[in-house]
Amino acid sequence: MPKRELKPGMASQLDTASYQGIATFAQRPLLTEPSELDEWEPDIAIVGAPWDDSTTNRPGARFGPRSLRAAAYGPGTYHMDYGIEIFEELEVVDFGDAICSHGMWEASRSAIEERVYEVASRGIIPIVIGGDHAITWPSATAVARAHGWGEIGIIHFDAHADTALEIDGNYASHGTPMRRLIESGAVQGRHFVQVGLRGYWPPAETFEWMGEQGMRWHTMNEVFERGHHAVITDAIEEASASPKGIYLSIDIDVLDPGFAPGTGTPEPGGMAPVDLLRIIRRITREVNVVAIDIVEVSPPFDWAELTINNAHRCALESIAGIAMRRKDLRFAQK
Amino acid sequence: MPKRELKPGMASQLDTASYQGIATFAQRPLLTEPSELDEWEPDIAIVGAPWDDSTTNRPGARFGPRSLRAAAYGPGTYHMDYGIEIFEELEVVDFGDAICSHGMWEASRSAIEERVYEVASRGIIPIVIGGDHAITWPSATAVARAHGWGEIGIIHFDAHADTALEIDGNYASHGTPMRRLIESGAVQGRHFVQVGLRGYWPPAETFEWMGEQGMRWHTMNEVFERGHHAVITDAIEEASASPKGIYLSIDIDVLDPGFAPGTGTPEPGGMAPVDLLRIIRRITREVNVVAIDIVEVSPPFDWAELTINNAHRCALESIAGIAMRRKDLRFAQK
Amino acid sequence: MPKRELKPGMASQLDTASYQGIATFAQRPLLTEPSELDEWEPDIAIVGAPWDDSTTNRPGARFGPRSLRAAAYGPGTYHMDYGIEIFEELEVVDFGDAICSHGMWEASRSAIEERVYEVASRGIIPIVIGGDHAITWPSATAVARAHGWGEIGIIHFDAHADTALEIDGNYASHGTPMRRLIESGAVQGRHFVQVGLRGYWPPAETFEWMGEQGMRWHTMNEVFERGHHAVITDAIEEASASPKGIYLSIDIDVLDPGFAPGTGTPEPGGMAPVDLLRIIRRITREVNVVAIDIVEVSPPFDWAELTINNAHRCALESIAGIAMRRKDLRFAQK
Amino acid sequence: MPKRELKPGMASQLDTASYQGIATFAQRPLLTEPSELDEWEPDIAIVGAPWDDSTTNRPGARFGPRSLRAAAYGPGTYHMDYGIEIFEELEVVDFGDAICSHGMWEASRSAIEERVYEVASRGIIPIVIGGDHAITWPSATAVARAHGWGEIGIIHFDAHADTALEIDGNYASHGTPMRRLIESGAVQGRHFVQVGLRGYWPPAETFEWMGEQGMRWHTMNEVFERGHHAVITDAIEEASASPKGIYLSIDIDVLDPGFAPGTGTPEPGGMAPVDLLRIIRRITREVNVVAIDIVEVSPPFDWAELTINNAHRCALESIAGIAMRRKDLRFAQK
Amino acid sequence: MPKRELKPGMASQLDTASYQGIATFAQRPLLTEPSELDEWEPDIAIVGAPWDDSTTNRPGARFGPRSLRAAAYGPGTYHMDYGIEIFEELEVVDFGDAICSHGMWEASRSAIEERVYEVASRGIIPIVIGGDHAITWPSATAVARAHGWGEIGIIHFDAHADTALEIDGNYASHGTPMRRLIESGAVQGRHFVQVGLRGYWPPAETFEWMGEQGMRWHTMNEVFERGHHAVITDAIEEASASPKGIYLSIDIDVLDPGFAPGTGTPEPGGMAPVDLLRIIRRITREVNVVAIDIVEVSPPFDWAELTINNAHRCALESIAGIAMRRKDLRFAQK
Amino acid sequence: MPKRELKPGMASQLDTASYQGIATFAQRPLLTEPSELDEWEPDIAIVGAPWDDSTTNRPGARFGPRSLRAAAYGPGTYHMDYGIEIFEELEVVDFGDAICSHGMWEASRSAIEERVYEVASRGIIPIVIGGDHAITWPSATAVARAHGWGEIGIIHFDAHADTALEIDGNYASHGTPMRRLIESGAVQGRHFVQVGLRGYWPPAETFEWMGEQGMRWHTMNEVFERGHHAVITDAIEEASASPKGIYLSIDIDVLDPGFAPGTGTPEPGGMAPVDLLRIIRRITREVNVVAIDIVEVSPPFDWAELTINNAHRCALESIAGIAMRRKDLRFAQK
Ligand SMILES: [Mn+2]
Ligand SMILES: [Mn+2]
Ligand SMILES: [Mn+2]
Ligand SMILES: [Mn+2]
Ligand SMILES: [Mn+2]
Ligand SMILES: [Mn+2]
Ligand SMILES: [Mn+2]
Ligand SMILES: [Mn+2]
Ligand SMILES: [Mn+2]
Ligand SMILES: [Mn+2]
Ligand SMILES: [Mn+2]
Ligand SMILES: [Mn+2]
Repeated sequence: MPKRELKPGMASQLDTASYQGIATFAQRPLLTEPSELDEWEPDIAIVGAPWDDSTTNRPGARFGPRSLRAAAYGPGTYHMDYGIEIFEELEVVDFGDAICSHGMWEASRSAIEERVYEVASRGIIPIVIGGDHAITWPSATAVARAHGWGEIGIIHFDAHADTALEIDGNYASHGTPMRRLIESGAVQGRHFVQVGLRGYWPPAETFEWMGEQGMRWHTMNEVFERGHHAVITDAIEEASASPKGIYLSIDIDVLDPGFAPGTGTPEPGGMAPVDLLRIIRRITREVNVVAIDIVEVSPPFDWAELTINNAHRCALESIAGIAMRRKDLRFAQK
Repeated sequence: MPKRELKPGMASQLDTASYQGIATFAQRPLLTEPSELDEWEPDIAIVGAPWDDSTTNRPGARFGPRSLRAAAYGPGTYHMDYGIEIFEELEVVDFGDAICSHGMWEASRSAIEERVYEVASRGIIPIVIGGDHAITWPSATAVARAHGWGEIGIIHFDAHADTALEIDGNYASHGTPMRRLIESGAVQGRHFVQVGLRGYWPPAETFEWMGEQGMRWHTMNEVFERGHHAVITDAIEEASASPKGIYLSIDIDVLDPGFAPGTGTPEPGGMAPVDLLRIIRRITREVNVVAIDIVEVSPPFDWAELTINNAHRCALESIAGIAMRRKDLRFAQK
Repeated sequence: MPKRELKPGMASQLDTASYQGIATFAQRPLLTEPSELDEWEPDIAIVGAPWDDSTTNRPGARFGPRSLRAAAYGPGTYHMDYGIEIFEELEVVDFGDAICSHGMWEASRSAIEERVYEVASRGIIPIVIGGDHAITWPSATAVARAHGWGEIGIIHFDAHADTALEIDGNYASHGTPMRRLIESGAVQGRHFVQVGLRGYWPPAETFEWMGEQGMRWHTMNEVFERGHHAVITDAIEEASASPKGIYLSIDIDVLDPGFAPGTGTPEPGGMAPVDLLRIIRRITREVNVVAIDIVEVSPPFDWAELTINNAHRCALESIAGIAMRRKDLRFAQK
Repeated sequence: MPKRELKPGMASQLDTASYQGIATFAQRPLLTEPSELDEWEPDIAIVGAPWDDSTTNRPGARFGPRSLRAAAYGPGTYHMDYGIEIFEELEVVDFGDAICSHGMWEASRSAIEERVYEVASRGIIPIVIGGDHAITWPSATAVARAHGWGEIGIIHFDAHADTALEIDGNYASHGTPMRRLIESGAVQGRHFVQVGLRGYWPPAETFEWMGEQGMRWHTMNEVFERGHHAVITDAIEEASASPKGIYLSIDIDVLDPGFAPGTGTPEPGGMAPVDLLRIIRRITREVNVVAIDIVEVSPPFDWAELTINNAHRCALESIAGIAMRRKDLRFAQK
Repeated sequence: MPKRELKPGMASQLDTASYQGIATFAQRPLLTEPSELDEWEPDIAIVGAPWDDSTTNRPGARFGPRSLRAAAYGPGTYHMDYGIEIFEELEVVDFGDAICSHGMWEASRSAIEERVYEVASRGIIPIVIGGDHAITWPSATAVARAHGWGEIGIIHFDAHADTALEIDGNYASHGTPMRRLIESGAVQGRHFVQVGLRGYWPPAETFEWMGEQGMRWHTMNEVFERGHHAVITDAIEEASASPKGIYLSIDIDVLDPGFAPGTGTPEPGGMAPVDLLRIIRRITREVNVVAIDIVEVSPPFDWAELTINNAHRCALESIAGIAMRRKDLRFAQK
Repeated sequence: MPKRELKPGMASQLDTASYQGIATFAQRPLLTEPSELDEWEPDIAIVGAPWDDSTTNRPGARFGPRSLRAAAYGPGTYHMDYGIEIFEELEVVDFGDAICSHGMWEASRSAIEERVYEVASRGIIPIVIGGDHAITWPSATAVARAHGWGEIGIIHFDAHADTALEIDGNYASHGTPMRRLIESGAVQGRHFVQVGLRGYWPPAETFEWMGEQGMRWHTMNEVFERGHHAVITDAIEEASASPKGIYLSIDIDVLDPGFAPGTGTPEPGGMAPVDLLRIIRRITREVNVVAIDIVEVSPPFDWAELTINNAHRCALESIAGIAMRRKDLRFAQK
């Protein structure tokens, strides 16, 4: 039976307006030791991955985890559309950051992979807060190690495919992690589904390579033409081929920059929060999501916490969707 | 017959580009004395309510009235969709601020109630500029005193229901005014219609209480699913039960924060201005609106007057809708 | 045969991440001499028009050309929806700025007209980067001189009609250029199509004058009610009466200020980028566009390059559309 | 005997926290008619001059008067170093704006000159709030007309001499007003004293012309080397040659941009407020100042009202210094 | 013997770049329970007091404690001028926040007083992070209860005296705490020394009352004229009359707004950090400081963490000064 | 004889207000090919080094070179304190950027070293615009290769010593370049003079190592106590031991963050521009400076170009000082 008691002083620091007390994600309990994960037995654990040296354009995503914890506005925890108290359905904890080192990709990559593995290998769902998108390479690698090498799928929301061979010689660029995951075999190309691609990158040969791998992608233009309901229905269908669950990767730049200015490579013409939040809750409810990341939140370019709050709500909707999925399954089992 | 003459020097200060001259709302004449209301006989009077100490998260709405007067961009006064000169149809004046005192709710509450009553009791429609949403408590109380205790209805646009019993012990929080109004009998629960609710607050027991009062609410999810036209048609129908007219309360956070970052408790996934402005013009044309407030504009968190201009346009669309309603009624009477 | 060789040092300055090297529009080659236009034979040439003293409200558009070159994020050049490398289809160069003089309209007007004429008279498509909308007066005058006085049409995206006789006595205001063009005969009223008008300006008599000229306009309300596809189909039909091609004028304030805060006269209730970019690509593909301007980008009021990037993408989509049109025509000729 | 009664409603709008009520300069009474100046008999009258089309670099000073009235923080009115209630010693009113027209220098110049003349010709000290420095041309012209053509002096604080013949052909540039005043004979060169010049402009020939006119100037380097006390002592001595009083012109860019970022042509290496405020109070106490302007406050480039508040305090210190001068003179007369 | 061991996971979260890991003040250990204070036996404990409803002008200081923990840049811990590792000399912990309730002064006042008392009554030096200056009332009350009612002194850095009887009827305004402390007898007027007063508030009668209480104050003008070394020497002498130690209260608005824009009532003409930091280190070294507060940091008005970092360094210099004082005393004892 | 002719179109693009035309440093001619350096024979060449992946805290300095060219305000070129036209005395060109690759230190290091070497090896003085301070490692290495390995000195302005062995395992951190230069022998420790150190980093052992190398440093505290004139006199004396000239490295964080918020590791308590600009002009006039860098300008954290303009003026003052030095030497030779 899990040990989940907070000391009274700590409890009162967490049970208050979101701008005061201790800054943890959504004011959830803070665990720092792997052994505490064993004792507490959470369903979900937040892990920060404060790395941004792989950014091609505007850096700053290293401040993402800190900002989601310290500056996001937490209005409450009752999901009015689902009618559930989010954190009564699932036990969510904050497991701190993978400690990264500026300019040191190998050390940082390893720190991220290991911290995510600590979580995922225990059957706990990690929600990894980036950091730029390069962090998905170690993060999804860890999840593949835990759940089955080559056996998980990825649903990937992004303006960009992030499948380049390299950018300016950099194989760890935030424009390359999806290629690395396929190359290593951690994730098979045919288990990849991308949504929201738009703009002028990557070039044709990259799309060709993507096709050769069996990757599927749905551009923003397709979402625009067919509507997101139809597209997501397809994406869920395509993802169902992954036997060991889905890793959901949300690059906040899938939103239009008007809603999410705080990001490194903004691309006009993106989604609106009113749609994205519904998409996320739907996917997490309908699909067996085993890990999530939310990346590319760059607070120096944010205004009035627009981007931070959108990212924070992506996490809340994910948690709510997972909670509903478990309720649905319990109901179905009866 | 109303006396409505401005001295020539004052007239030229008001009849110019909106960034120069005297800063009144929409460059309308400034009246400061109740006796001037009697002489001038306006149809509508702007009243500022610069109070923000009831804010649970980001304060700053005390600067709302000043900013709407001084920093909103006034492009002109011809409503191109209705084909009317707004201020030729209706006489609108600026009646200054209810003088509030920092940290002193009772004194401020009273100042707001009395100043709104000065307007409403003369049959003039007040447009009250907040301030945080707590100001709706005294403002709507004044309108109920003037038009009929328990006999007006409220159509309330907001991301939040603002019906909590108390928040952190505060019964005058900006999360509680609607409860106070129902408790006092100023407005009956069955005369309340809310539109735009979303996110994670209030908790279930508050929704239960709302149901018990006969309140009606339309979540943002409902607006998303059914479209705003259908929802507003229902809302208007529901509001029609109020015998003595409608108080329209617009919390600017009903807009998505991407359009209205300058607010205290931003909730992603809201409306777009292209929709909200049409909704407001429709309601004010179709319903007997006797008072309006526009609240939760917090200029310190605004950028490039995004939120300020949206709030300003909510007022203009309201005035235009009211003007059209009167034209419609005159036409119908013929 | 065109001479289009860059020295190797220059080539490497242009072929890199968009924030480094030489700041030209979209990192295209820089030509400064008219003779270089003859040698290089580009299809399209960018011309800056850094003038903002005609702004009625928030100035700053003088910094528009510099900002589009220096601060827009250039992610790549492959148009994923069309499957083309934009700059392989068309040769685009940056022809620098028309040198303007602060407060000196006549000198600046003349500089803009002559620089645009240098481009247009060679059959090169100018893309003129404003500056406020007053620059369309000299710019379209130059295009009319080059392609046929009274024989080009204008498709004009804007929240405002910009057809005033004068504003505060100013006949060169950014609210008047379209009137000047019709008065001079450079463009006939019946060749004018406007899209996106909204708000409270201009007044009725201006709309009457517009009607008398045979101008056509589609308000934002019409776009809202009928959808942009139907409206643009009509606009294209209406524009087809212009025998010598279309001048496309894009006032960035046609976008909602939430997406484009960096502009001088923001009007809530505008378009979203996801729509505007599609509209632009459609028009440039379906219509014979011979010149383009993108105006009213005011960087001091922008945040995180939101407006700058939208304007930059308007240019990229225009270029892509023109490229596809040429492909379509070549294909049709076979 | 002056009529100085405010209606009670107006009085309460002005007697409150500076962010609420009516936005006048320092919450002083608002007069709009010349006849009211005669009745009220103020000592000092504020006049706004919202013009910025003469700016060579960053425009925005048109928003200066509005911002000083609406956004400056007014903490109180007791001058703790002088021990006086500022507005009990002197009667100060706000006389509104000279109505300017965008892009129309002649009309705006004339409006400024006439409104300042209305004040100065009555023996009231105008404090003119810019706008860019071009407004000093009409403003000081009006003062010279009122007090003696060629008989007033100017003490001019600025990073720039503003004595160019023309800039880019513009004779009304904000870099030229001092030349215009000398050329017209309104102010003689030998009655000009400049303080704070620094940086890289104007060029040598302009300094030569300045020397030929008998102008005196004290660079920031001289202030740095000799200290401001010695320099101001000299400046006061030099200014004493002006028989009919001094026009004090304060370009806020005399401050270092770190203290005053909201300005059009910032030049690093300027004064600190702790010094400038003392200099101003000293000059206004020791010299017969008959008019003042405070210019080049450009709110779009300001942050957290830094520049606005500095400009506002320049006005308060001027008023305090003038009040003390009158006390000193009364004391000396006894 | 104190128990001061951190679990290894927690240790690594705190021992890293200051933007990652757990957000505690200066990355010090986090204690939340009073019993932990007993076990850990720190020399100094940080306490947040996130209250800002007593602000007369720009609110936002409620975000002060969160921001100092989450957004201040921590470069290292070696004090190069003193040659000490700050946190090796003294044990400093973060004791979390006094949980405040929006709009509820009595509850918040009590929470602050009790949490500070938990610290001070154990002989631990509290460093209280505001919050607006109203928090000094409960905070210093707690210290007086712990160290001797009427027997501690206060050295108070501020642009404002904060000794009003009331402001707009509010006796708990941030302009009144020093009066409350004297009235209650917690601190005697003759034990009060203020430094940095400037501007236009409070009025004469308040200064008179201050004189009657035996308070001493040193205006910014005096600091300017005599230099801070002489003034602080006097202030230390004056403070020496307090038998039970000194409470040091630092209102960040004692700095010029150019260095500290993020504050509620900015007053131009203040100190520079290069001086203030030296003053603080001197006072804490030369005087028996038993408690400290740092107040009026309002992050919404801050830019690039200017104010936050200044406040953070005020704390570091205080800690360093206290450490040196203890070294000095140990040395003297030998 | 140098070939220094610009085509007329290019000349007019460069000879205009600094916000228009082509964005080169100070509107100087742009050379991109090494062969052009040979033909043009400039005295000084600007080189951009847009690298920031070595930043320990706030990245963004990659945008430094672009911003100094595109956004700095260029008021003119006449140095009023020296009475010279800066660019008539010396021929200065812009040699573009060393093309860096995100996340790829070795490639970027090499690109910087080679581009600086192209300049320095021709006897041209490079002014290198960072980028973070890591770029001084390759830049000064290139200069040492060109002028004498181990025979140049460095005068280094900074809040930080940047002499760490490594930071978080990173030997190329912006906190380590000075150590790398000494280790490699490029610069001897005894040829190093640092000015402006302050705060809490590096730790004691690093200072010990610095002492062992014979490095000299002058803390901000020393500057504060002794005044900058005395300290710089010493620094110049100490630097005179370097036989082959001085490399001047200016980390903009030597300024107080109030003047230079746009930087990565801000440390309160720094210099004012009024002092720094004088120091720089003095050193470049009195010492044989053979190369300069200006680093750590991070535009995302800048406001209203405060930091950008300070950095730009550091370059102008350097050029002016060098010009005067050459005049002095010519005069001495006569
Ligand atoms: Mn991505
Ligand atoms: Mn992306
Ligand atoms: Mn509300
Ligand atoms: Mn709300
Ligand atoms: Mn337009
Ligand atoms: Mn427009
Ligand atoms: Mn000037
Ligand atoms: Mn100036
Ligand atoms: Mn205070
Ligand atoms: Mn204060
Ligand atoms: Mn450095
Ligand atoms: Mn540094």
